[in-house]
Amino acid sequence: MKHKMSVFAALWLFSALLATAQERGRARDFGLITGILPTGKWNAITDVPGVSVGHKTLLSGDSVRTGVTVILPHQDNIFQQKVPAAVYVGNGFGKSMGLSQIEELGNLETPIALTNTLSAPTVANGLLDYMLGLPGNENVRSVNSVVGETNDGYLNDIRGRHVAPNDVSDALRTASSGPVAEGNVGAGTGTRALGFKGGIGTASRILPPSKGGYTVGVLVQSNFGGVLQINGAPVGRELHNFYMMEEGPYVADGSCMIIIATDAPLSARNLKRLARRSYLAFGAVGSFSSNGSGDYSIAFSVHPDTFIPHTSKEPVHMTPDLRNDELSPLFLAVLEATEEAIYNSLFMAADMEGHRGHVVKALPIDRTLEILKKYRALHQDTLPKASPK
Amino acid sequence: MKHKMSVFAALWLFSALLATAQERGRARDFGLITGILPTGKWNAITDVPGVSVGHKTLLSGDSVRTGVTVILPHQDNIFQQKVPAAVYVGNGFGKSMGLSQIEELGNLETPIALTNTLSAPTVANGLLDYMLGLPGNENVRSVNSVVGETNDGYLNDIRGRHVAPNDVSDALRTASSGPVAEGNVGAGTGTRALGFKGGIGTASRILPPSKGGYTVGVLVQSNFGGVLQINGAPVGRELHNFYMMEEGPYVADGSCMIIIATDAPLSARNLKRLARRSYLAFGAVGSFSSNGSGDYSIAFSVHPDTFIPHTSKEPVHMTPDLRNDELSPLFLAVLEATEEAIYNSLFMAADMEGHRGHVVKALPIDRTLEILKKYRALHQDTLPKASPK
Amino acid sequence: MKHKMSVFAALWLFSALLATAQERGRARDFGLITGILPTGKWNAITDVPGVSVGHKTLLSGDSVRTGVTVILPHQDNIFQQKVPAAVYVGNGFGKSMGLSQIEELGNLETPIALTNTLSAPTVANGLLDYMLGLPGNENVRSVNSVVGETNDGYLNDIRGRHVAPNDVSDALRTASSGPVAEGNVGAGTGTRALGFKGGIGTASRILPPSKGGYTVGVLVQSNFGGVLQINGAPVGRELHNFYMMEEGPYVADGSCMIIIATDAPLSARNLKRLARRSYLAFGAVGSFSSNGSGDYSIAFSVHPDTFIPHTSKEPVHMTPDLRNDELSPLFLAVLEATEEAIYNSLFMAADMEGHRGHVVKALPIDRTLEILKKYRALHQDTLPKASPK
Amino acid sequence: MKHKMSVFAALWLFSALLATAQERGRARDFGLITGILPTGKWNAITDVPGVSVGHKTLLSGDSVRTGVTVILPHQDNIFQQKVPAAVYVGNGFGKSMGLSQIEELGNLETPIALTNTLSAPTVANGLLDYMLGLPGNENVRSVNSVVGETNDGYLNDIRGRHVAPNDVSDALRTASSGPVAEGNVGAGTGTRALGFKGGIGTASRILPPSKGGYTVGVLVQSNFGGVLQINGAPVGRELHNFYMMEEGPYVADGSCMIIIATDAPLSARNLKRLARRSYLAFGAVGSFSSNGSGDYSIAFSVHPDTFIPHTSKEPVHMTPDLRNDELSPLFLAVLEATEEAIYNSLFMAADMEGHRGHVVKALPIDRTLEILKKYRALHQDTLPKASPK
Repeated sequence: MKHKMSVFAALWLFSALLATAQERGRARDFGLITGILPTGKWNAITDVPGVSVGHKTLLSGDSVRTGVTVILPHQDNIFQQKVPAAVYVGNGFGKSMGLSQIEELGNLETPIALTNTLSAPTVANGLLDYMLGLPGNENVRSVNSVVGETNDGYLNDIRGRHVAPNDVSDALRTASSGPVAEGNVGAGTGTRALGFKGGIGTASRILPPSKGGYTVGVLVQSNFGGVLQINGAPVGRELHNFYMMEEGPYVADGSCMIIIATDAPLSARNLKRLARRSYLAFGAVGSFSSNGSGDYSIAFSVHPDTFIPHTSKEPVHMTPDLRNDELSPLFLAVLEATEEAIYNSLFMAADMEGHRGHVVKALPIDRTLEILKKYRALHQDTLPKASPK
Repeated sequence: MKHKMSVFAALWLFSALLATAQERGRARDFGLITGILPTGKWNAITDVPGVSVGHKTLLSGDSVRTGVTVILPHQDNIFQQKVPAAVYVGNGFGKSMGLSQIEELGNLETPIALTNTLSAPTVANGLLDYMLGLPGNENVRSVNSVVGETNDGYLNDIRGRHVAPNDVSDALRTASSGPVAEGNVGAGTGTRALGFKGGIGTASRILPPSKGGYTVGVLVQSNFGGVLQINGAPVGRELHNFYMMEEGPYVADGSCMIIIATDAPLSARNLKRLARRSYLAFGAVGSFSSNGSGDYSIAFSVHPDTFIPHTSKEPVHMTPDLRNDELSPLFLAVLEATEEAIYNSLFMAADMEGHRGHVVKALPIDRTLEILKKYRALHQDTLPKASPK
Repeated sequence: MKHKMSVFAALWLFSALLATAQERGRARDFGLITGILPTGKWNAITDVPGVSVGHKTLLSGDSVRTGVTVILPHQDNIFQQKVPAAVYVGNGFGKSMGLSQIEELGNLETPIALTNTLSAPTVANGLLDYMLGLPGNENVRSVNSVVGETNDGYLNDIRGRHVAPNDVSDALRTASSGPVAEGNVGAGTGTRALGFKGGIGTASRILPPSKGGYTVGVLVQSNFGGVLQINGAPVGRELHNFYMMEEGPYVADGSCMIIIATDAPLSARNLKRLARRSYLAFGAVGSFSSNGSGDYSIAFSVHPDTFIPHTSKEPVHMTPDLRNDELSPLFLAVLEATEEAIYNSLFMAADMEGHRGHVVKALPIDRTLEILKKYRALHQDTLPKASPK
Repeated sequence: MKHKMSVFAALWLFSALLATAQERGRARDFGLITGILPTGKWNAITDVPGVSVGHKTLLSGDSVRTGVTVILPHQDNIFQQKVPAAVYVGNGFGKSMGLSQIEELGNLETPIALTNTLSAPTVANGLLDYMLGLPGNENVRSVNSVVGETNDGYLNDIRGRHVAPNDVSDALRTASSGPVAEGNVGAGTGTRALGFKGGIGTASRILPPSKGGYTVGVLVQSNFGGVLQINGAPVGRELHNFYMMEEGPYVADGSCMIIIATDAPLSARNLKRLARRSYLAFGAVGSFSSNGSGDYSIAFSVHPDTFIPHTSKEPVHMTPDLRNDELSPLFLAVLEATEEAIYNSLFMAADMEGHRGHVVKALPIDRTLEILKKYRALHQDTLPKASPK
C-alpha cells in the first residue's frame, strides 16, 4: 500500500503542481543559453538516436519522495547487443553498482537505472527481473546490472526503502524517446542541489558537420552542494543560499549521477575521457565535489557499428574508432551539456515538502532571471556570429 | 519452501557426506606444506584477532546449491568503527558491490558478504537490513554494503535466485572465530575450481617477531579455471583434468573472491598493495585469470588503533602506519596464505550433484597425494632449518 | 653560448619589460577577488610553511623562451625526509616523470621541477645531479625525479633543447620562500594559455580556525586552451580571443601543471582527492582539458609529523591523519587557489615574441577590467559579510 | 674513455665468456619445457612479425656493467605510425617514463628502451635524439619517450651514469629481428634475479589456428628477488640460494621490466589486460613483487590494421578488435612466455664480477637440471598428446 499515492497526497501534489507549473520551465525557455554549441531537437539525452528514458515517481503520504529513472541506450535486447561504455568516478562516496565490469570489459549490458542510495540493491534486482525475462535471455546466468544512486534522505523516508523491483519494470515499460520529464520525477523526486530543489535534468549538443556532426546527450540526477553559479553569475550568493552553509559552514554533501550518451564511434578508452570531462561541470556551476558526494559519470556510445553482440561467430570485429585528435569538440559538448542539464534540473524542479516536514524550495526563477540580467549572464550576445565550422 | 531441504535430498547428502567425509581434510592434514612461513592457530582468517566468519548453506532439492558467507572484521558495530580497507581488481568481470567507496574513503563499514552472482543484490539488501537495524545506527541513511560473488550456475539454479535477505542475517548471527568450515559451505556450496569442486578455503600466516609478528589471514571463494598445480606439481595434467579444456579448449571461466585480513597497521594504500599480491597466487596454482573470471581481492586491517569512528570530535587522528619498507614479508604472507586457501578449498570440498544433474567431482585426495609424492611436492624437506628471523 | 643572452636580446627584453612592467600586476592588485576564502600572506604556494620556489629563466636570441621552475616542499634533504604526496592525471597527454612511484609509495623524494616538454629528461638529470650530490645521499642509488612539463614550442625553439642540467641547480640554489615571481619566468617563460600569454601563477588560501586553519598553496604552469572566463565573466568572448579557434575551430591544445602544497596532515589517499579537485578549475576558467593537453596535478603535505624518513629504526610511525569528513574545506581551497593561480599567470605574463617571430600578447588588463566591471565580476560585493566560521 | 672497454677488461671478458660459453644455453636447449603452447621460430619477442631488438652493452673497467636494450614494434617511423599499447604497473617503485601518455592515448610512439635506474633520463634523451632526427619528424615538437629501468647498482657503478645518449642510437641501429641475445647484454648486463645473475630473457608462444594463430612475444629485464621455482621445482631452496635472505631475511628488492608484443588485433583496453597477466608470472617463478621492486609491463600490438597514423584525413578509422571472449588463450600465452623469458634470462646469464668487487654467480645449470629431474619438472611427459585445437 505504501507505494500507492493517497487521495490527499494526490490532491496536494495536484495543487502543488498547479501552483508551480506555470512558472517552471527549462533554462532555455527563459532565454538562458549556456555555451556555444547548438542543442539537439529536444535538448535532451534522447536526441542521441535510439536512446530512451523512463521514470517511475514515488510520491506517497508525507514521506515517500523517491523513484527510479532508467536510460536505455537502444531499443533492442541490450544484453545481446552490448554498447561500448566507460565510467569515471569523480568522488567515490557512493554505492553505484556494476562499475568494475564496465571498466574491465568496456561495455554496458543493461539499461542504467538511477534511484536512492538505500534502494540501489532492490533496483538492481528489478533490472535482473527485467533482463532475465527478456526474450532471448533464457539461458543468461550472469548480468551486470548498472545502478546509480544519490541520497534523497532529507525529503524522502530513505530508510523505508520504498522502491520495489517492479518500479524498475514500470520505468522501463514507459521509457520513450522525445522530450524527457525533468525536475521532481523518477530518481530526482526527492533530491536537492546547490541549496535548491534538485532532480533530473538533461541537455544535448550537436557538433558541426565538420566535426562529425555527432550528438552528445547528458542526463543528471542532481543532489550535490556548493554555491550556485549560472553562466558565471553568482546566483547562490545573491540569493544568500549557500548550500555549503546550510547546516553550518561547508556542509555541502550530496551526490551527482551523470549519464552521457553519444552517437560518435568511441572506444571505451575515449568514452572514459568523455566521462571525465563531465566532472569539470562542477567547477562551472559552483561546486567542488565535497567529501560526501558520490559523483559518478557513465558514458556510452550508440553508434550501431560499435555494438558488441553477446555471442558471435566472428572473433574479430571491424569497429569504427574516432581518432584521439577528434575528441576535443566532444569534450566541449559534454561539458556544456552537463552544465545545462544541471541548470535544467534546478529550473524544472518545484518546491517539495517531505520526510519529517522538511521543505526544499525550488530555485526562484524570477529572481534568478533578474540576477542573470544584472550579471549579463542570461543570453550571451557576445557569441561568435558564425557558428564554429 | 524451496529453501528447505527435502528428506530425499537430505538423505542423498548424508550418504554423500558419509562417502566422502572420512577422506576429506585440509591440505596440512595430509602433510602438504606450502611456503616457508608458519600458520596461525587455526590456519584461518580467524587467526587475525577479532575476525569472525559465518556461513549459511542452501542445499535444497536437486537444484539449490548456493549460500552466503560473511566475514566480520570485528565484533562491534562496524559502521560506527570502520576499518581501513582496499580493493584490487584482478579481472573485473564480476558484480561485486561497494568497491568504489572503499577505494575513495579507504575504509569498510559493513561485514563483507559473499554469494552467487545473481543473488548479490539480495545479499546487499540483507546487509542493509542488518546494518540499519544495529543499535546505534538508528539515524544512518547511507551504508556501503560490500558484497562479492562468483557464479555457481553450473551446479546451482542460479536464475532461481534462492538466497533471501534473512540468509545474510543467519550467516551473521552464527559467525564465529576459531575454525572455519570450508569446502561446500556458504558461498562456496556450488562453486568449482580448476576442474574440481571448489568452495570456501582459508589459511593464515604469522610473521616472525623481527618482522612485527603480524598475522595475515585469507579466505577464498574459489570458482575459477586453469590447470591445477600444487606446490608446483602438475596435478591437473596428471589427472587429465584440464578445466581449460572441459568445455572445449581454453574454456576456463569462473571467478575468485579473495578476502585478506591482517592486524598489521596499514594504510588503505598499503592494503591495496597487499591485495594486489594475492593475485599472484593465480600464477602459483596454475591459473591465468581468464576473460570471464571476476577476480577481486579485498584487504582490511583490524589493528584497533587504525579504526575510524563514524563520528569524532577530533578532526585529526594519530594513526599507526607500517613503513613501506616493512611490507615485503606481508606480501609473502599474503601470497602463501592465498595459495594455501585455494588448496584448502579443493581439499575440503566434496563431490556435488546439482542443477540439471550436473556433477562436479572433488579433488581425489589419494591420487593427488601420490602425484605430490611423485613430484616431491608434498612436504618440502629442503625447507630452511632455521625459521626466518 | 646559446644559453647566454645576447646584448641585443637583453636590450629588447629590457625595453619589453619596461613597456609592460607598469601595467602588469596580480589579479588582486586590480581588485579581482576569486572565491570566499582568505589568502595567505603572499597569496602564493610559499605561504605553506617551508615551501620555496625557484626559477631559472632562459631568454636568449630570438628563439630561446623557456626555463625551469622548482618547488621544494621543505628546506632539508627531501630524499632523507620524504613528504606524503599524490598525483592526479586529468589528461595524460604529457611527459611528466616520476608519477608511478608517487602513486605506489605515496611520497615525494625530490623537489618538483617544471620545464618544457622536450627538456624534461635533461631536467630529470639535473635533479639527479642535485640529489646525488646532497650531503647524506652519498650511497643513494635510486632517486625518483619528479618533473612536469608543458609544451612551449610556439614561442620557444623547443627542438633545440636549450635547458641544461645546471639550470636546475641554478633554480634550486635561488629558491626562496616569500613572494613568487609569476608570468614569463622559469618554466612559464614561453607558455600561453586561453589565447593569451600564460606562465607561472600562484595563489593560496587559509581555512578558518574552526576548519583547522590550514594553508593550501597552488602553483600552475599555464599552457592550455579554452575560452577565458574570469569569475564567470566571458572575457575571452568579449575580447574575441578564442584559443579554440586560433588555428581553426577547436584547436585548444596545450597543458597545465598544477602543484598543490598544504600543511594539513593528509594521507596520500586524501592528497589524491585534493589533487583531483584542482581539475575542476578548468571548468571554472573556461577550459575543457582538450585532447592534446597534459593536465597533471601533484599534491603534497608539509605537516612535519607526516614526513617519512628514508630509513628508520621504527617500523611503525604514528602519523596524524585528517579525517575524510574534514576534507571539503580543503577541496574548496584547492579549487579557489587553482583558479586564482591561473588568473595570476595571465595577469602577470607580458607580451612575448619568440621562435619564428611568433608573438603572443598578454591579457589586456585594462580591457579585461572593463569587462569584469560590465559583468560585475571584478569584486563580488555579495560576499557573505561574516567570514566562514 | 670510460665507455670504451680496456684491453684487460676485454681479455677478462673473453676468458669469462670462454669459461661459461659452453655451459650456458636457453631453457629449452636443456629440455626444459614450460607450459603447453608451442613457441615461435626463435622463441623470442622477435617472432612477432616486424618486432626487432637491439642491445648496447657497456662493460668497462671493473665497475661499468650496464647498457641499453631497445624494442621496436615495427621498422617504420613509429611516431608517424603509432601502435596500440597499454601499461600495467605491478609495483610502481620504479622510474619508468612515458607511462601516463600510453594510458591516456592508448598508443606508443617511440621504441621502448630499457636501461639502469639512474640512466633513464639520459636514455630518454637518446630516444629524443633519434625520434627528432628521423626523416619525416622535422616538425615534431612533442615525443613521448618510453623508458623502462631496473637497478643494477650492485654490479654496476650506477651513480657514475655511464650510459650516453648515443648508446641508444647504437642499440637502435643494430636492432634486428631473428634470435635475440640474452643474459648479460644490454640493459641486463648488470642485473640479478632470484639470487642469481639475471639479465635479458625472451620467449614466445603461438596460439593454435582455431584460436587465431596469434603470436605473443615477451622480453624481460630480470632484476628481482624471491626464491626461485622452475616449473614448480624448488630450485632456490635446493640450492640454498634465497635471494630473500641474501642480505638478511626477506631482502628481495629489485625490479622487472616486461615487454609484451602480439600481432593479435587488440584495443589498448585489452592490451592492458594482457599486460596484467604477465604479473602472474611472479607467482609462478617464486617471487612476490617486493616493496622495492619496480615491476612494469608494457604491451603493444603490431597488427598493421591497428596502427594509428600521427595525422590522418580520416577522422574515423575502421579497426579490427578481437572480442573479449577470445582473450583467454592470449592470457595463457603471456603467462607462459613471461615465465619462460625469466628462465631464459637466468639460463643465459653468466657469472659477473663488477662494482666494488661484487660477484653474482649464474644459475648453475648442471645442478639445476639435476633438481629439475629430481622433481620431474624438466620435461613434462604428462603433456596432452594432442595440441590444443
